[in-house]
Amino acid sequence: MSIQRVAIVGPGLLGGSIALALRGRKEVSVAIWARRPEMVEELKAMVIAQYTATKLSRVVRDADLIILCTPIEAMPELAREIVGAAKPGAIVTDVGSVKATVVAELGSIFKGGPRFVGSHPMAGSEQTGLRAARADLFRGATCLVTPDADSDAAAVAELGEFWQSLGCNVRHLSPAAHDEAVALISHFPHLLAATLVNVVAERQDTAFDFCGPGFRDTTRVASGPPEMWAGILAANSTAVRGALDAMIEKLREIANILARDPADPAIRTLLTHAQQRRANVRFPNSPNV
Amino acid sequence: MSIQRVAIVGPGLLGGSIALALRGRKEVSVAIWARRPEMVEELKAMVIAQYTATKLSRVVRDADLIILCTPIEAMPELAREIVGAAKPGAIVTDVGSVKATVVAELGSIFKGGPRFVGSHPMAGSEQTGLRAARADLFRGATCLVTPDADSDAAAVAELGEFWQSLGCNVRHLSPAAHDEAVALISHFPHLLAATLVNVVAERQDTAFDFCGPGFRDTTRVASGPPEMWAGILAANSTAVRGALDAMIEKLREIANILARDPADPAIRTLLTHAQQRRANVRFPNSPNV
Repeated sequence: MSIQRVAIVGPGLLGGSIALALRGRKEVSVAIWARRPEMVEELKAMVIAQYTATKLSRVVRDADLIILCTPIEAMPELAREIVGAAKPGAIVTDVGSVKATVVAELGSIFKGGPRFVGSHPMAGSEQTGLRAARADLFRGATCLVTPDADSDAAAVAELGEFWQSLGCNVRHLSPAAHDEAVALISHFPHLLAATLVNVVAERQDTAFDFCGPGFRDTTRVASGPPEMWAGILAANSTAVRGALDAMIEKLREIANILARDPADPAIRTLLTHAQQRRANVRFPNSPNV
Repeated sequence: MSIQRVAIVGPGLLGGSIALALRGRKEVSVAIWARRPEMVEELKAMVIAQYTATKLSRVVRDADLIILCTPIEAMPELAREIVGAAKPGAIVTDVGSVKATVVAELGSIFKGGPRFVGSHPMAGSEQTGLRAARADLFRGATCLVTPDADSDAAAVAELGEFWQSLGCNVRHLSPAAHDEAVALISHFPHLLAATLVNVVAERQDTAFDFCGPGFRDTTRVASGPPEMWAGILAANSTAVRGALDAMIEKLREIANILARDPADPAIRTLLTHAQQRRANVRFPNSPNV
């Protein structure tokens, strides 16, 4: 089977960007589900899908690939509707930022039905919603595909090819390894950026008047949607707490060094390690939205 | 007196960018001091100054404005050479990122000689050196001018006009208030970004393979030169320690909340505060180098 019909469940930044990326591909037709009728009208006006509706079973019934693009909290309920409506051979994936809990829950809902495999295209933005969607959002972005022991190997391969066709670099990771990794490079850094903003505000909020590009970039992610991020942090709290505890411990060590001797060469050493480590990171080409 | 002759002491990113910004202004001539003869040759080949030399007294003797653009550790020694060579009415400034200690030390060296006023153009970059210099580096950047009780009011005004002519938004702040503010928005965030990179490296360095634009931006400043930043953190260690302690305390509170209940609404509240506070920050237009 090749993927010819794609159903997008939830037209936010990611769902909308998938639709835009697929627009104009003659061999692929796109159907989009939105909860609100006004959103369906907006999508129709944009002409980015062959079919748009609020009735989920209609949207997914012919699809070869169904992509859940809603907040993770909403996914189980939608999945239970999809399981009775989708074709048996269909592939279902999601774009949630947390995978262990999501894959376990959705995997059990879809057991014996359409073939579920989790995805996490790492192309977010502090902007959200359909209006921030763009056809090139996935170009150069990493997409983590997270099969588990129950995953269908053919579905994993096809799903990987689909993300690649959108411009992603596809990598495979177990759901648990995924969650540990994204806690370190995304979820905990988000919490840290938000906390930094709050520390500045509470100590000397006039300091914001003098911000340069450094502070702008260091805290950019803190402008992300609080509701969504609170959900992500809750869903991945174990791994986030591990990173948080490690950070607190390191900051304490640094505080002790600075209290003893601000010119201690250990400070330069830790800055050098960070500089060298970061120099070895190959960041994706995806745009800074 | 209007500023017609500018002497730049140290052709790094900032010194080089000042020279490039002044190039082509008929009414201003630029002299540059560099420690190494090879650098003098490189500057001559670039044709960005009317005069370039390793002999400091020659470079500064006719200047209306002398700008110290070296690392802060090197400034006092250079200042002692300048004090005997500069015109009595000259204005001297520096571009150091820490002001209380620098202004106190340089102010006492220049007492009775040329008029010293500290500056801090906040247009740094994780890149350094002449090759990263650019004519538009200061456009839209904030420049903090930090007079103290001994400062000559006319010199403060002229210096402000000079930075404005380079495209800076000029603000005045006491050296102590400056140091507290930049600890919060620059020095401590730098330490935090570097520590985040080190925490990731030490917990799961394969996570770097999956970095998206969020982690790239959150840690961008950690690529800055370790030697320079160790010097800045040492020079401003009191204010940095204050920010560090406040951060540790906040992170501990968050760790306690997540341990008790990952879905506690307090997490969403803190993310919302951060989002709203950041939305009110007016970031300068200066480019993300």
